[in-house]
Amino acid sequence: MRRLKLNRAFTLIEPGPVVLVTTHDGRKNNVMTISWTMVVDFTPLFAITTGEWNHSFAALRKYRECVVAVPTVDLLDEVVGIGTCSGADTDKFARFNLTPVRGKFVKAPLIKECLANIECKVIDIVRKHNIVVLEGLAAYMDTARKERRTIHAVGDGTFIVDGRRLNRRKMMLSKIPEGI
Amino acid sequence: MRRLKLNRAFTLIEPGPVVLVTTHDGRKNNVMTISWTMVVDFTPLFAITTGEWNHSFAALRKYRECVVAVPTVDLLDEVVGIGTCSGADTDKFARFNLTPVRGKFVKAPLIKECLANIECKVIDIVRKHNIVVLEGLAAYMDTARKERRTIHAVGDGTFIVDGRRLNRRKMMLSKIPEGI
Repeated sequence: MRRLKLNRAFTLIEPGPVVLVTTHDGRKNNVMTISWTMVVDFTPLFAITTGEWNHSFAALRKYRECVVAVPTVDLLDEVVGIGTCSGADTDKFARFNLTPVRGKFVKAPLIKECLANIECKVIDIVRKHNIVVLEGLAAYMDTARKERRTIHAVGDGTFIVDGRRLNRRKMMLSKIPEGI
Repeated sequence: MRRLKLNRAFTLIEPGPVVLVTTHDGRKNNVMTISWTMVVDFTPLFAITTGEWNHSFAALRKYRECVVAVPTVDLLDEVVGIGTCSGADTDKFARFNLTPVRGKFVKAPLIKECLANIECKVIDIVRKHNIVVLEGLAAYMDTARKERRTIHAVGDGTFIVDGRRLNRRKMMLSKIPEGI
């Protein structure tokens, strides 16, 4: 994994892929599947929707850090499996053969098998709406990875895989942040 | 456009497509391109990130309603065009040949050319993070439309088009809300 410039990290989340969010509770790693995410600022800031119903939430609230990892379509069954069992009774890293990698800023692990990882700290929890606001501290990309298509959860049990990419950069230059 | 059951409306936004958000300021219609969106609840509740930098924000704050419309790939140039000019000096419905359609609950118009539309009221504005929380009141789908592939903004001037759809419904049954 190579460091990705932090000002590009929002481009990992803006397209709306399903992500894996890892935490560390002082004793062990955990990971959850989240498809309710949003970029909030280029700096980068991200929002995710989660709450008490996710076992990871306690660690997120207590340690105020996590890693947002972006899986690709070859990991779909792992993504679904992670989303349908609980860290309360399952070591998900072991069960789904994920390799935890030590980050630079947070104790929550990066996931080696993912296309990209973002180390994050929790900067706010909007309890009224179950919205957790994250600040990205460092981003990484597996530039050697061949499969780079991410997956978009529909919410009905189906997933849309990335198709072709269209370029409208010239039309949009006024709106693209400098250096992107 | 046909009514879509409201409990399915979250499935329009969960995959993370770029959307158009319409408003009505008491005098005229406006529309903005938003790719920073998130489902917050199945009921459905949605979050979008916007603020004073968008001309539409004043109408959104004052009238507390909008329509979230989901365009498809054949509308990409309109989506980019709408996102790179301002309602302050442009009638975007006229300029981009969009047909406003009267909804049932809000004065902001549906967009006839879009695949889907969701009438929404603003239920909260989290000013600290520029997050606007919307409640869906009614949803519509153009079931006759042939092009149904949505588009995902990357943020660097490129867009990813929906590719194939994979089904993991059986694996996920425990997590899919009833009736979906």
